[in-house]
Amino acid sequence: MPNDPLVVFTPSGKRGRFPRGTPVLTAARQLGVDLDSVCGGRGICSKCQITPGYGEFSKHGVTVHQDALSEWNKVEERYDQKRGLKPGRRLGCQAQVMGDVVIDVPAESQVHKQVVRKAASARVIEMDPATKLYFVEVEEADMHEPTGDLERLARALKAEWGIDAIRADLTLLSKLQPVLRKGKYQVTVALHRGHAGDAAQVLEIWPGLHEDGLYGLAIDLGSTTVAAHLTDLVTGEVKASSGIMNPQIRFGEDLMSRVSYSMMNPGGDKEMTAAVRDAINTLAEEIAKEAEIDANLIVETVFVCNPVMHHLLLGIDPVELGQAPFALATSSSMTLGAKELDLAAINPRAQVYILPCIAGHVGADCAAVALSEEPGKSEDLALIVDVGTNAEILLGDKTRVLACSSPTGPAFEGAQISSGQRAAPGAIEAIRIDPTTKEPRFRVIGCDKWSDEDGFDDEVGEGGITGICGSGIIEAVAELRMAGLLDESGLLGSAEATGTPRMIPEGRTHSYLIHDSTEHGGPRVTVTQGDIRAIQLAKSALYAGARLLMDERGVDKVDRVVLAGAFGAHISPLHAMVLGMIPDVPLDKVTSAGNAAGTGARIALCNVAARREIERVVGEITKVETAIEPKFQEHFVAANAIPHKTDPFPELARIVPLPSPSFNTHGDGSDGGRRKRRRG
Amino acid sequence: MPNDPLVVFTPSGKRGRFPRGTPVLTAARQLGVDLDSVCGGRGICSKCQITPGYGEFSKHGVTVHQDALSEWNKVEERYDQKRGLKPGRRLGCQAQVMGDVVIDVPAESQVHKQVVRKAASARVIEMDPATKLYFVEVEEADMHEPTGDLERLARALKAEWGIDAIRADLTLLSKLQPVLRKGKYQVTVALHRGHAGDAAQVLEIWPGLHEDGLYGLAIDLGSTTVAAHLTDLVTGEVKASSGIMNPQIRFGEDLMSRVSYSMMNPGGDKEMTAAVRDAINTLAEEIAKEAEIDANLIVETVFVCNPVMHHLLLGIDPVELGQAPFALATSSSMTLGAKELDLAAINPRAQVYILPCIAGHVGADCAAVALSEEPGKSEDLALIVDVGTNAEILLGDKTRVLACSSPTGPAFEGAQISSGQRAAPGAIEAIRIDPTTKEPRFRVIGCDKWSDEDGFDDEVGEGGITGICGSGIIEAVAELRMAGLLDESGLLGSAEATGTPRMIPEGRTHSYLIHDSTEHGGPRVTVTQGDIRAIQLAKSALYAGARLLMDERGVDKVDRVVLAGAFGAHISPLHAMVLGMIPDVPLDKVTSAGNAAGTGARIALCNVAARREIERVVGEITKVETAIEPKFQEHFVAANAIPHKTDPFPELARIVPLPSPSFNTHGDGSDGGRRKRRRG
Repeated sequence: MPNDPLVVFTPSGKRGRFPRGTPVLTAARQLGVDLDSVCGGRGICSKCQITPGYGEFSKHGVTVHQDALSEWNKVEERYDQKRGLKPGRRLGCQAQVMGDVVIDVPAESQVHKQVVRKAASARVIEMDPATKLYFVEVEEADMHEPTGDLERLARALKAEWGIDAIRADLTLLSKLQPVLRKGKYQVTVALHRGHAGDAAQVLEIWPGLHEDGLYGLAIDLGSTTVAAHLTDLVTGEVKASSGIMNPQIRFGEDLMSRVSYSMMNPGGDKEMTAAVRDAINTLAEEIAKEAEIDANLIVETVFVCNPVMHHLLLGIDPVELGQAPFALATSSSMTLGAKELDLAAINPRAQVYILPCIAGHVGADCAAVALSEEPGKSEDLALIVDVGTNAEILLGDKTRVLACSSPTGPAFEGAQISSGQRAAPGAIEAIRIDPTTKEPRFRVIGCDKWSDEDGFDDEVGEGGITGICGSGIIEAVAELRMAGLLDESGLLGSAEATGTPRMIPEGRTHSYLIHDSTEHGGPRVTVTQGDIRAIQLAKSALYAGARLLMDERGVDKVDRVVLAGAFGAHISPLHAMVLGMIPDVPLDKVTSAGNAAGTGARIALCNVAARREIERVVGEITKVETAIEPKFQEHFVAANAIPHKTDPFPELARIVPLPSPSFNTHGDGSDGGRRKRRRG
Repeated sequence: MPNDPLVVFTPSGKRGRFPRGTPVLTAARQLGVDLDSVCGGRGICSKCQITPGYGEFSKHGVTVHQDALSEWNKVEERYDQKRGLKPGRRLGCQAQVMGDVVIDVPAESQVHKQVVRKAASARVIEMDPATKLYFVEVEEADMHEPTGDLERLARALKAEWGIDAIRADLTLLSKLQPVLRKGKYQVTVALHRGHAGDAAQVLEIWPGLHEDGLYGLAIDLGSTTVAAHLTDLVTGEVKASSGIMNPQIRFGEDLMSRVSYSMMNPGGDKEMTAAVRDAINTLAEEIAKEAEIDANLIVETVFVCNPVMHHLLLGIDPVELGQAPFALATSSSMTLGAKELDLAAINPRAQVYILPCIAGHVGADCAAVALSEEPGKSEDLALIVDVGTNAEILLGDKTRVLACSSPTGPAFEGAQISSGQRAAPGAIEAIRIDPTTKEPRFRVIGCDKWSDEDGFDDEVGEGGITGICGSGIIEAVAELRMAGLLDESGLLGSAEATGTPRMIPEGRTHSYLIHDSTEHGGPRVTVTQGDIRAIQLAKSALYAGARLLMDERGVDKVDRVVLAGAFGAHISPLHAMVLGMIPDVPLDKVTSAGNAAGTGARIALCNVAARREIERVVGEITKVETAIEPKFQEHFVAANAIPHKTDPFPELARIVPLPSPSFNTHGDGSDGGRRKRRRG
């Protein structure tokens, strides 16, 4: 009616006229304004708090008088006394519209809150998880109209929340009757809606209003580490993050050695499955303890992982993934009960979502990177590299996305390096070599100072330098190349040829001495010719994978490069490019995305539509198999040179002129082509 | 084309013209003729056998020449050599139409075979079980078009069988890859389709063509006994039937004592759940052994049971069923995995279907009776009584069906009877009392002769008569009434009043001596006044329940009575009516339906549409709660008299004139109204 009061909601700007006496929550619902309510307007959940604005609002053409809303009622008073309402706040279900009014919906009262993923990124996650809480009042049992308690719960959820159908497993059914009676037929249920059209599953039920929250785990199940983020399914907040080593390491460091373990040992796959499931239970227990929440409140888990881990988690022998044609048992996304994975530490009815795999070597982790980095929405051509034991590589823009994986091996993580070690205190993580003096200076984990700064020795101590980690070795090789100590083919020069006593002969090759603490009983940290070869193999595989995608796409350069993976965050773009790990682009076009796979898992946890989105996107990605592509081998050999034998690096040349010595005394310095490639 | 050969199929009469060279199977499919094929026309499953007819078929207006079908091909020859084709048979997928032909489809080649339930009944079950076998050829894995094996299996099932979507649990996934490779990508799968629209679940997979059949169990889970029928899911044939005692008897003979056990003993419900699940596993193992099949081939189980057994089977504490308002945790039908019920003896992925419950006292067993006896399709008004420890009662016709349960107690089963025993060798199961001499003659289980026939003593021996079973005691009470030894109020007369020394004083009451073998160390079998009272209580409850439904329906007579339940088969209609167990109807209108609940379970096992049917029917049944209905008590008291205090029994009077003595020496012979009613 034209004389009815006008209600304007901010920030949405939605507006409409409502009869005097209409509760603000009702007006919001009719206009489709995002205003939360768990209790369905009964004044007990306090989720629908709003802030009325008073005075002149010329923008909206409204003057709001002091009596625009009904006076505080008893429900609001009681709530305020018991828990306290912030000044200026009202309960949307209690306050009634009495005159024109402007109503602000604060962020915490919105269901579809937007959670900014990280400060530096424009990407936000809209909260719309698969599992949500619903408070309902169920009809009492009536022997003259006999129906089951579950059926009456379903009827209430339909009437109050428009939920079409529900289902409950036997463990839930066995607690349904006592909880309903304890709550005097008022209960809160956690409902999981995996797919539109499926019946919503009742994961948990509490008597009365449940106010202790609801949580999910986003788990990045890597070959080496298992990382989990405990996420509040209402606010999207990460309550705790924790990681543990993947206990499968004892069966094999890399994926292929785990596949062989399964091939050689009957039941080996089952051992590995049990080990990783145990580890996940331990992780879930620890993270719940750290966040001080009841682990029973963890009702969802999202996994991202590579295909071998995917199969081992699911209890499927990964043997087929070890040989062409690398057939996955299943590639689709999966929704299953936590019980099926023996995840006993969390709610027994918790639901697990596993992102789809892209191909036999390109897993759900790569799908998660695609979900997080969205190459398919990129205007310019982006190369996304998730660096780990295996590198997952995505190339694409709005028109088309391609993916492959490449067997870089563990060198980038400091494994199979003579002085290599994991990133831990004492490890050299950054290094610079003076091009003139050929002297090094470096930084170790656990100390902010460089080694040539005052007080470094005191802070670290002689025994404190224990080795070199992944980012350190990458920088060291690139610095050796820039200092003229390493030639394009990957040969280290002799002391004579380079003019520095730091080049030490070892058999027929030479090593570069970074630091010697043998006098003090410590180690000697060197970069050996073998180390150079290991890095060459890794970076050639990575580059060759990227090149293969570029070939497929018909381009010979990309617009930008994103380094993903926990390790990606520590690689210096300049050093990566000197090494020829990634194609030549302007240095400011190389960015780090942090743990993009983990972020993808978090997105799928917080927003159920994102699951459908990545399932669709994965179907559209062009899969490129590196293992049998002859051109991969060609690219691999050419990429063995540092930065590259044939591809020009003009952007790199503009900032760093690389010296061009040659330390080859045998006529051929490259043996990359003859080396055996590894996967995993 | 008008010149194409005409193909006429019998018995369907479907006909059409097809180009020369069309395989008979293809023609059948295009015409919608029911011709089976598991292998999809590859000539390996032999399910599509047909019999061509040759010569003049004036009925069809066709002359069939000897060359009407293509000659035997190699596939048929090989099949015949290997397994033998019956004379005159051809493989429908191999034989091609070359001229006009009449093709008979034998019953065993039809998918939707009709299984006659029992010879005397017109009711047939059309075979259309939820789980069926499908043979498919799956594309091999291709690393250039990477998809999972499950996804390629789904694609093949879609292309060859029109199956829209499938799903598989982790245990199936873990065997998918080896089985596909063992079968060279040809496999047979058992697919379960519970509900239209749901993805079909892969329950089992075998390499190549699986020819060892597929089975289901129809289980009637009673308070006292658990009966199972092992049914061939392809032919509908019952391969074996077996029963065991319900081990929950040790927690309480009747249902209410089990409910009290649960109330009084924390965890008591869990003990009872474990006991019954164990028993079902034992039963499944035994029945598979008896039928000589692999228990892993049992992929479906249907349960019918009363509400208390329903909850105890599911692991739900039945405590709410012991008190008003008798709320069920859930009343809907359920489809669940056998694993959820710990049914480890059968296929680990087997699916369980449990019929819906009608009300807190009217269970899935009553729903099964409704499915089997179809009162809702009856032209005349039928009263269906399933006699057991609880009686389930249905009253209805095409216009409306009503249901209730009535707590008859265990007297009808020979329990709580002084000389009572279960129906086993030595038990008196039938008895006649001479109205003039008052002398009894009887038959015992295990001997075909009556006790007054020559050779009876030799066959049975003195110690061979051990007691009286349910049908025996019912007959005895009715015979006593007809012989004038028992008056309408239920009092037994003295020796003086009746003129027979078989009436023996016991305190202030009298017993009738049927047989005395105490001289030979055997028992003395009598009918005591207490026994009469127990039977009166039981029959009053049964009759009162029926009357309550008749009141609700607004009638005072029914057109026919069906006695269901294993025990119903042994009750003589005449004696049941003399006793006043059932309302007065012409004797030929009382029929026995045998184990109607078990039959209902078999129907739901063999025909998935029947599940939807009974779910719909149950929703339309009017539930009547006897426990709190004041008129029930009124009917109960009036029904205490034998046959009845007030209701006339004109049909009975027409065939059996009942004497009308009165043995009441205290002014009131009835104490039925003061007795406490039992349930369960």
